[in-house]
Amino acid sequence: MPEIRSNPVTGDWVIIATERARRPEEFTQKRHKAVLPPLAPECPFCPGNEAQTPAEQFRVAAPGGGWLVRSVPNRYAALTPEGTVERHVNGFRTCLDGIGLHEVILETPAHNLTMALLPLSQLEQVLQTYRHRFRAFYKDRRIEHVILFKNYGEAAGTSLIHPHSQIVGMPVLPSQLRARLEEALRHWGNVGECLYCRTLDEELRDGTRVIAQNASFAAFVPYAALSPFHIWFFPKRHSADFGDVTDNQLADLAAVLREVLLRLYVGLEDPDYNFVIRSLSPQEGAVKYFHWYISLIPRVTKSAGFELGTGMFINTALPERSAEFLRGVALPA
Amino acid sequence: MPEIRSNPVTGDWVIIATERARRPEEFTQKRHKAVLPPLAPECPFCPGNEAQTPAEQFRVAAPGGGWLVRSVPNRYAALTPEGTVERHVNGFRTCLDGIGLHEVILETPAHNLTMALLPLSQLEQVLQTYRHRFRAFYKDRRIEHVILFKNYGEAAGTSLIHPHSQIVGMPVLPSQLRARLEEALRHWGNVGECLYCRTLDEELRDGTRVIAQNASFAAFVPYAALSPFHIWFFPKRHSADFGDVTDNQLADLAAVLREVLLRLYVGLEDPDYNFVIRSLSPQEGAVKYFHWYISLIPRVTKSAGFELGTGMFINTALPERSAEFLRGVALPA
Repeated sequence: MPEIRSNPVTGDWVIIATERARRPEEFTQKRHKAVLPPLAPECPFCPGNEAQTPAEQFRVAAPGGGWLVRSVPNRYAALTPEGTVERHVNGFRTCLDGIGLHEVILETPAHNLTMALLPLSQLEQVLQTYRHRFRAFYKDRRIEHVILFKNYGEAAGTSLIHPHSQIVGMPVLPSQLRARLEEALRHWGNVGECLYCRTLDEELRDGTRVIAQNASFAAFVPYAALSPFHIWFFPKRHSADFGDVTDNQLADLAAVLREVLLRLYVGLEDPDYNFVIRSLSPQEGAVKYFHWYISLIPRVTKSAGFELGTGMFINTALPERSAEFLRGVALPA
Repeated sequence: MPEIRSNPVTGDWVIIATERARRPEEFTQKRHKAVLPPLAPECPFCPGNEAQTPAEQFRVAAPGGGWLVRSVPNRYAALTPEGTVERHVNGFRTCLDGIGLHEVILETPAHNLTMALLPLSQLEQVLQTYRHRFRAFYKDRRIEHVILFKNYGEAAGTSLIHPHSQIVGMPVLPSQLRARLEEALRHWGNVGECLYCRTLDEELRDGTRVIAQNASFAAFVPYAALSPFHIWFFPKRHSADFGDVTDNQLADLAAVLREVLLRLYVGLEDPDYNFVIRSLSPQEGAVKYFHWYISLIPRVTKSAGFELGTGMFINTALPERSAEFLRGVALPA
């Protein structure tokens, strides 16, 4: 008998289709991946080609010269920096100029690495860069919302190989954030607690869906996971603002993120995935009812008309089994 | 300069990335499709193999024997018919048994046809079957919501070739429907009109995004279309209930649907697509603020971390140009 579970954080129902469920190993990608060189002369993100990107906005310098991490404007930006945020209301229609900020964060000079295989210190530098750009974007007062995300692999929507993430600052509040805020505010209003803190407490107490944790962060498969190996990373200290994360917390986040990415890399044979950081702005950091977090979705299944038409998902993996499988992956020493 | 448009029906913001925009022809699929036989002996949906499907629930008989359309339970159903709809609340968690109805509607005996190429009378029989099964599903009082959808092609999430649609009845209201109802109710409460009737009026008056229409239906690219060639089909007579559609209206719907599918088939070289019918139940048919409709999304682009993390979309085609292109496609006589 399948089970329908409610996700209190999003208000979504998810069908856990246990009869259709596949064994975790069956989600491995088994793709034949090309062997890549550490430096690709034609890659605009490789060292030596720095002039091919728009003007660098931030870099973490390498001790001996060169760079460890760079952030550069996206040459094919979805939004452009010049303009105003006046809304044009024309009868029934509302639009505004597509102003905003859009940068690409280069996670390493090495063309052939992947985030899962970065040294811990390097991953920490990437997260430091995330925080720096996140804070910087919000200094532009036209920006209402900033989203950090990573598309890894073709199924996740990227064809660029050089390891990179993206950050977009936009002049409107996306409807998905609005919906999350409404759910969270309702819970806070009714129960007087942060919906996310409560979710984390429940997950840690239960333990069956937890994959990894340390002093500052926990990673777990949500009770009503949308898809196989859907993973949430929650900071243990309540904050609505990612920009508020301390250096110590970032080091802890790097450790948990790396462990989980490595478990996915080994256990599912380097799957394509997306992750996003959902956060309010530094100005709203003290909000009691919202909690920033990271959501990661390996692209091991496809959504279709049912999902498009309902916003509901059919998950063919039992969340508890997904978590158990990832906990059991033997990591290289 | 890109433009950010608001979709009043969904509350979503969409970035129309005009600088990234490609010419409509560039969205053609240019795939090499296999030539298929009209009858495939190994296909469980082909005539002669009727015993391979679960017990048929409905058929439109062919005048000379055999069938024109069949509806059969899905062998790999997401939900199962036996059980109760009691919700189990366990502290913070809510779940219920995965009960529900799930059928596959076989649109033609011909293995190698596609909906765009069905004769008009056959497409009408398919829509009659949709209405019949839609009404029948709601007779089961455990069913809270019914969704009809079609996944066409691999990018749209199906690997089954024989032309088919699906219908799912579920015991919960999906969050996406709830969000649509909330937006519609707010508008009705504030302005005293159906948000969908108003949208249709505006589109017909403006005309630049309309693709096809007749006495009962209009097909148009929404002002804030989520993706290239995203198309809405609205009934002109207000009703919240698809099951309430008359025979004459169904004939008109078949004509508009066929014309649009044919324009996509010819203009974009047989693209993969999904469509869904969004409707309330017959019991709620008299609701003044909601309006049933069909949403069709050709799978010509991919969504990634940005869309997952915000619910916002980046559309690389100008909706007016998509509509103009489809209107201009020369159809076979």
